[in-house]
Amino acid sequence: MAKSDKQKTSALKEKDGIKAPDALSSVSAKAIKSRRQKQPSVNDLVKGITNGDITALSRAITLIESTNPKHTEKANKIITACLPYANDSIRVGITGVPGVGKSTFIEALGKHLTNTNKKVAVLAVDPSSSLSKGSILGDKTRMEDLVKIKNAFIRPSPSGDSLGGVARKTRETIILCEAAGFDTILIETVGVGQSETAVHSMVDFFLLLKLAGAGDELQGIKRGIIEMADAIVINKADGENVKAAKSAKLEFNRALHLYPEKASGWTPKTTLCSALHNEGISEIWDMISNYMSETTSSNYFETHRTEQNKFWLLQTIEERLKSNFYNKPKIKSELQQQIELIESGKTTPFAAAEYLLGL
Amino acid sequence: MAKSDKQKTSALKEKDGIKAPDALSSVSAKAIKSRRQKQPSVNDLVKGITNGDITALSRAITLIESTNPKHTEKANKIITACLPYANDSIRVGITGVPGVGKSTFIEALGKHLTNTNKKVAVLAVDPSSSLSKGSILGDKTRMEDLVKIKNAFIRPSPSGDSLGGVARKTRETIILCEAAGFDTILIETVGVGQSETAVHSMVDFFLLLKLAGAGDELQGIKRGIIEMADAIVINKADGENVKAAKSAKLEFNRALHLYPEKASGWTPKTTLCSALHNEGISEIWDMISNYMSETTSSNYFETHRTEQNKFWLLQTIEERLKSNFYNKPKIKSELQQQIELIESGKTTPFAAAEYLLGL
Repeated sequence: MAKSDKQKTSALKEKDGIKAPDALSSVSAKAIKSRRQKQPSVNDLVKGITNGDITALSRAITLIESTNPKHTEKANKIITACLPYANDSIRVGITGVPGVGKSTFIEALGKHLTNTNKKVAVLAVDPSSSLSKGSILGDKTRMEDLVKIKNAFIRPSPSGDSLGGVARKTRETIILCEAAGFDTILIETVGVGQSETAVHSMVDFFLLLKLAGAGDELQGIKRGIIEMADAIVINKADGENVKAAKSAKLEFNRALHLYPEKASGWTPKTTLCSALHNEGISEIWDMISNYMSETTSSNYFETHRTEQNKFWLLQTIEERLKSNFYNKPKIKSELQQQIELIESGKTTPFAAAEYLLGL
Repeated sequence: MAKSDKQKTSALKEKDGIKAPDALSSVSAKAIKSRRQKQPSVNDLVKGITNGDITALSRAITLIESTNPKHTEKANKIITACLPYANDSIRVGITGVPGVGKSTFIEALGKHLTNTNKKVAVLAVDPSSSLSKGSILGDKTRMEDLVKIKNAFIRPSPSGDSLGGVARKTRETIILCEAAGFDTILIETVGVGQSETAVHSMVDFFLLLKLAGAGDELQGIKRGIIEMADAIVINKADGENVKAAKSAKLEFNRALHLYPEKASGWTPKTTLCSALHNEGISEIWDMISNYMSETTSSNYFETHRTEQNKFWLLQTIEERLKSNFYNKPKIKSELQQQIELIESGKTTPFAAAEYLLGL
């Protein structure tokens, strides 16, 4: 703000301004800079994760969820380094339509497990969460007891613009949780749409939560979801609901018998519970443990996980092939033109595809 | 065989052989050569097709079905040239498990239509036909009356090593049949597996044939197929079967009401027929005609066909992307290695995918 004397006497003289204070004190700036430089290395995070450090685990998951390619690269290194420590867990998928009591059920099950010295990670796959800003597990306070328990780790659904992306992130997060010593992975999903298939392909046991007397015992059930279920649990089987729950149990049992035998050799079970009153929870875990020992001794458990891995390999390749193609600038501009030619009957879908693939 | 006198007197003299007759008379050879040269040109075939010449139509379809790239190129030209003459038809998909009487039904419907001056093409999508050597429509004699009718054209399912390929060929054949003046295209499929979805995506009206009293009213029905159906026709509703057929009709009607309203605005119908005794056939066609006029006036018919074309565009692109990738020699050799690394826990499906995509 130093001005020449000439200026000072000129008609255009301006009053000397007051130097604005720095937006950041130099002390703070230094601290921030140093903290930024201290971004933990891949090695730090891997060491932290395998030591069961939740902060390291959370940070690594954040890298998985990031869209920054540098973060992705770092995340990939962490996952690869964690692989030898992973895989030693049981992964349980839990689905059910909104209102069925998924959070209450997961909290009750999680508490039962931590009480028996299990380490429980609760993850979620909810492709709608990026739109609705986290419809499931987004609000951790919905599991306010479980969140305080040392041996429980709750992580809301990653967001993403495709189910494939969301599922991949959760799939990778499972590996880190296992490396951090979590022996039980519960994966929640929303009970509507394709996300069940994605979750089913990353878990060992798939549990469908239902309500009795909601008038939807047969109506509106996605048959594909029932087909995937290893157990149907009728929740809120308490008070006046008990009778209806029992008859729903019979009805589902009957429905389950219409499906062909599962590759696992497991006969899907129907059970009742009241998550709110903590009734039937330990029985459900006993059932899942039975499943574990049956399928482990038959070797299905191991071969099934290998099959799942192959599925994910092909799935990832095919998704990437598509996104690589459709994101080419040339394709983006020409696809619409070809669609218009198809609409006006000037080309066939097959000729248009041929043309676009040749670009 | 002319030999010198010297040879004739030598000890090594051989008896003059008798000239072997030409395997082919020169006249025949000329005729064949000329016929080969006369392979009809694209223009010839297009002219033939648009004049309703069945021989030209059959030859062009053979080009569509060929795996020879030169034939494919020629076929593509023919299809493009036929496009302006195509599209003016109703396309009906007909499915049902083996034994439900599909051939008898199609023959009865086809005869009804040709009797009212329609031109009917009967095609099929049966991905299993390349293995089983044509399980449906392979044996034309199964429709021995229809095959003799001038205004009916029957073509068995093309073979192919993927459903996508089989479906594409049928999809292209529809265009040629329409250009040849066929105003009604019936497309048969087998009622098991994914081929229904493929056929559903190329027809205007989708008809599911069922039997009553086969004990499978609810059991074993692929729910997805019921969901696609615009009509469920209970066949063999004759003699002692009538009562059971009527109660099956009620049951299916009830089941249909559980599904959300169709985008077409059409309420799926359940009807009875006896294809063998030619009962209920004209009523079924009246129903399909009603569907046509309702959806034409609501403009759904047109927009739906455009949607189907877009679906086929994307479907074709995605299939080709996959086959291009998996058929790369490098990928063929390295994919198995990556799978083995996954199996031994040395890499993740995601890292392996990344690696393979980078090759």
